Amino acid sequence: MEQTFIDLAVTSWSGVTGRLDKFFAGHDEEQLLKQVAPGRNRLFYLLGHLTAIHDRMLPLLFLGERLHPELDECYIANPDRTLPDPLTAAELKQAWTDVNAALLAGITKFSTQDWLARHSAVSEEDFAADPTRNRFTLLLNRTNHASFHLGQAILTRAK
Amino acid sequence: MEQTFIDLAVTSWSGVTGRLDKFFAGHDEEQLLKQVAPGRNRLFYLLGHLTAIHDRMLPLLFLGERLHPELDECYIANPDRTLPDPLTAAELKQAWTDVNAALLAGITKFSTQDWLARHSAVSEEDFAADPTRNRFTLLLNRTNHASFHLGQAILTRAK
Repeated sequence: MEQTFIDLAVTSWSGVTGRLDKFFAGHDEEQLLKQVAPGRNRLFYLLGHLTAIHDRMLPLLFLGERLHPELDECYIANPDRTLPDPLTAAELKQAWTDVNAALLAGITKFSTQDWLARHSAVSEEDFAADPTRNRFTLLLNRTNHASFHLGQAILTRAK
Repeated sequence: MEQTFIDLAVTSWSGVTGRLDKFFAGHDEEQLLKQVAPGRNRLFYLLGHLTAIHDRMLPLLFLGERLHPELDECYIANPDRTLPDPLTAAELKQAWTDVNAALLAGITKFSTQDWLARHSAVSEEDFAADPTRNRFTLLLNRTNHASFHLGQAILTRAK
């Protein structure tokens, strides 16, 4: 029965990434330059940030090497408009799609035990002390993170 | 073992509502008048909206009567600045605290089977056709909803 709870959490993750897919697919290069509020992040930055954070989940979940480590400097280490965007809008959208596809292919193969195992940013010692720092918690946290930025992105829509 | 997955989802819910608690507690009546972006929702409206949506979860999860049904007209049925706020900031913050406390007290008593049972907005017939429309899904969806608006609220912070 634990599989049911896992499936529902994966559905929640896919639901949020799917809403973001749809949102970003409807924006061309120029529209991605819109800021969520005056002086705040461009949609382009949010897409880069979300792609980089999801890409990092691949090694965190022991699902293999990252696909786009080149995004971190621009979209995690620095605030918006500090560095030039390393990819075009079309390339970044493709990266977003590829990263999420790789993640979903990996996590849908996880066993119950895999979900309760540590993610790679926690040492075995720290994990023994706090077993809630597992892959299921990581998925829930990243689902919330994606929802958080979706709420911001939506503000650029005409009322 | 399913209890572990349930506990982690409840922790995720509490984490997001806790971040919102902290955020709103740091804002007085005047600060709550800030809009998340020009012409967009005031923080006051977001607090009212989240309180109303969480209050609705009480009957949805068969946890009893609503505590603040008077909020719906202002914060769900109508956009911001359509109707006068029915409560003061202090009263609304108290309502937010009370509603979340009642919810948490209720859901922490749920059995595994309770979580997989229907919520009250789904008929027994519809639920038989789609058993994913259960209380666990509702919790995950409302956690995402709270994260979505937290992302917006945060935009009012000084950079």
